[in-house]
Amino acid sequence: MDSDPRVRAWERRTAMPLLTLSALYLGAYAVLVLATGVPRDVRLAVLAVLLAAWALFAADYLTRLALSRDRPAFARSRWLDLVVLALPLLRPLRVVQTYARARERRGGPPRLTLEAQVIVYTGLTTVLLGFAASLAVYQVEHAAPGATIRSYGDAVWWACSTLTAVGYGDVFPVTTRGRVIGVAVMLTGLGLLGAVMGTFSSWLVNRFRQATGPVPDEDRPPPS
Amino acid sequence: MDSDPRVRAWERRTAMPLLTLSALYLGAYAVLVLATGVPRDVRLAVLAVLLAAWALFAADYLTRLALSRDRPAFARSRWLDLVVLALPLLRPLRVVQTYARARERRGGPPRLTLEAQVIVYTGLTTVLLGFAASLAVYQVEHAAPGATIRSYGDAVWWACSTLTAVGYGDVFPVTTRGRVIGVAVMLTGLGLLGAVMGTFSSWLVNRFRQATGPVPDEDRPPPS
Amino acid sequence: MDSDPRVRAWERRTAMPLLTLSALYLGAYAVLVLATGVPRDVRLAVLAVLLAAWALFAADYLTRLALSRDRPAFARSRWLDLVVLALPLLRPLRVVQTYARARERRGGPPRLTLEAQVIVYTGLTTVLLGFAASLAVYQVEHAAPGATIRSYGDAVWWACSTLTAVGYGDVFPVTTRGRVIGVAVMLTGLGLLGAVMGTFSSWLVNRFRQATGPVPDEDRPPPS
Amino acid sequence: MDSDPRVRAWERRTAMPLLTLSALYLGAYAVLVLATGVPRDVRLAVLAVLLAAWALFAADYLTRLALSRDRPAFARSRWLDLVVLALPLLRPLRVVQTYARARERRGGPPRLTLEAQVIVYTGLTTVLLGFAASLAVYQVEHAAPGATIRSYGDAVWWACSTLTAVGYGDVFPVTTRGRVIGVAVMLTGLGLLGAVMGTFSSWLVNRFRQATGPVPDEDRPPPS
Repeated sequence: MDSDPRVRAWERRTAMPLLTLSALYLGAYAVLVLATGVPRDVRLAVLAVLLAAWALFAADYLTRLALSRDRPAFARSRWLDLVVLALPLLRPLRVVQTYARARERRGGPPRLTLEAQVIVYTGLTTVLLGFAASLAVYQVEHAAPGATIRSYGDAVWWACSTLTAVGYGDVFPVTTRGRVIGVAVMLTGLGLLGAVMGTFSSWLVNRFRQATGPVPDEDRPPPS
Repeated sequence: MDSDPRVRAWERRTAMPLLTLSALYLGAYAVLVLATGVPRDVRLAVLAVLLAAWALFAADYLTRLALSRDRPAFARSRWLDLVVLALPLLRPLRVVQTYARARERRGGPPRLTLEAQVIVYTGLTTVLLGFAASLAVYQVEHAAPGATIRSYGDAVWWACSTLTAVGYGDVFPVTTRGRVIGVAVMLTGLGLLGAVMGTFSSWLVNRFRQATGPVPDEDRPPPS
Repeated sequence: MDSDPRVRAWERRTAMPLLTLSALYLGAYAVLVLATGVPRDVRLAVLAVLLAAWALFAADYLTRLALSRDRPAFARSRWLDLVVLALPLLRPLRVVQTYARARERRGGPPRLTLEAQVIVYTGLTTVLLGFAASLAVYQVEHAAPGATIRSYGDAVWWACSTLTAVGYGDVFPVTTRGRVIGVAVMLTGLGLLGAVMGTFSSWLVNRFRQATGPVPDEDRPPPS
Repeated sequence: MDSDPRVRAWERRTAMPLLTLSALYLGAYAVLVLATGVPRDVRLAVLAVLLAAWALFAADYLTRLALSRDRPAFARSRWLDLVVLALPLLRPLRVVQTYARARERRGGPPRLTLEAQVIVYTGLTTVLLGFAASLAVYQVEHAAPGATIRSYGDAVWWACSTLTAVGYGDVFPVTTRGRVIGVAVMLTGLGLLGAVMGTFSSWLVNRFRQATGPVPDEDRPPPS
């Protein structure tokens, strides 16, 4: 992506702290949305954590921009970083690159085959994005007039049936903001979950090939 | 497609004007469908733009037919051009070829990898077709008795949930013309968006491969 | 499939008549289901055509069985022929093999690329199966209590939204026989239409590759 | 997976009995869920069969664990065996490996091409998982207030429309346990049925390639 050595060194060093901070951000958001009965002071503290985490994300982006030699090129090639900074609930999208950097730093041989890596990391990204989306859709929908997503369980069920493109239609967003989140979940389902499952299919075919060895062609017509 | 040098030269020269004209056509159609409150004179002017753009599309097709040496072969190999002339809302389908011609003319090295090109241009085609379809379905449905697509927001939400095959069933066309548009959107979703997402998957797997280098086979059984 | 020369010679000779007979069968079934207002004599004539066509299908199968040297092997390798004989509405499934045989007989160079062939012939199979399924589901559903498929237009719309896995849920079968047809349509959609669209995707990527020539790898990280 | 010779020998010997036991387990569960009118003694006998089968599954797992030289490595690489032991309705997931072992023992050349094997065995796994899921969802849903899955036929129809991602929304689970089963069915549909259908597509393209021989490139532009 970027061959600027100072940016790469910074990104390797901050990979693990950023992963932790992302988990903290998502956890704080979950508390804010779901734990509505907590005292006002606790809510304010959680809100402070959210804002502090976001400020650190912004500081990280600006530091990298400052460290890079060709700043316009950095901004262009890292456009996704800017999108994720503006919409922090999309942060799980960074997990793949951050993981690769954390591994570079830790060194050691990889532990999984390529297909297993794609399945595990892309699957994890999908689950985290689905979790963030279910929180967001619950927040904007549960009190809307005519809403069908009224409990957090409904929101999780909606996220699952939308990510897998089943779409029963028993629960669905009715507000404009809920529908915008819905479109993001549909695209995530098509893209990320499609990638997970496509990789799973090719892994399965390989597994069969290795389990059974070479096979005859008796089912096929003669070549001429 | 066609090795006739005069047709190719004409197509290279007209690529950029045709792209502009297509954008103008779609914009004028959007104004006609959505801006129902504008004065009668403005509506007539917009209608004139639509008809003029269509006349230019027809003139372009006839010019190319006249320039080609083997006219029946031209008509056969360019059957999609004739379909798009008859149904101008399908014009986004031409964006890929027109782009390739505009690039031929402009010269210079390509800026994106092959996979990124497929994702960007096919994705753009899908978005434009979805936009045209949401306008058309809004036009034929919003005043129909028993309609569920009653606002333009409903039409966009319907187009997204149909393109991604989610299909909640909260909004759907009820008229015959609306259902014909719906079938076109379903096929677009399966074909174009499927291509975008399939390419995205293979891009993602490549990205993992490059981020992590060669991997061991410890997860696999011994060959014999 | 079968290297028995007498069976192959018979199948080449009967390919074109069988394609015609299949079209006749489907047409007669459509008349029987849709043209309910015709005089009783016409209906009986159409029914006679249906039965005669089926008898010819059975005679063709038995002739091939008689011609083959190893009859149990013939029955095993042609199990799909027996399924199609039992359920004649599945006859479009034979169009691929019958086409290949008609082409063998006619000779001459192929006219389409491999990808275009898969798209055209599998797409045609899907359309014909969808047509047969919409007739069958209309026949068993339209008079059922609580039916949502009440007109033939509803049945076509249902077939399209089921084949593409959109499944709005505005129309769906409610009888057991209708649901059995529905499951067949779902599997057809996943299998055949999936194959059409997957092939279309790879055709599209090839098209881009040829339109734009070799591309740089600037979007990719350095190899080490 | 595991190169420990004693574990492999045990797994080869027990492959066929375990397949039989799995079929018995699923059959007993079906009787328990569906045959509600049978005498109390019969129900108790069926329940005893279920528990005995489960005890044998557990004994098999513990025996293999005891036989393996590196027990923590065995537990890690066979995590799916532990999941299937905890949720015995997922047992069809083991059919692929158990089949491979039964074949190793029986010897003899394979009878199907690789693609046909993937289609047959993964398809069978999907059908068995769908059967288990329809039983489970019927058990937890049919008496729930507001349930739409009220007969076993409804449960089978729901399983089919969910596995194929059609999701009409005429029947769907309303209880939390039913929704958990639903998410499992959605993932099975995406993963296993996606693999079956993807393999079917590539088989179909190969079939066309062999039926028609090399094809010209006349549909493609000249290389330069």
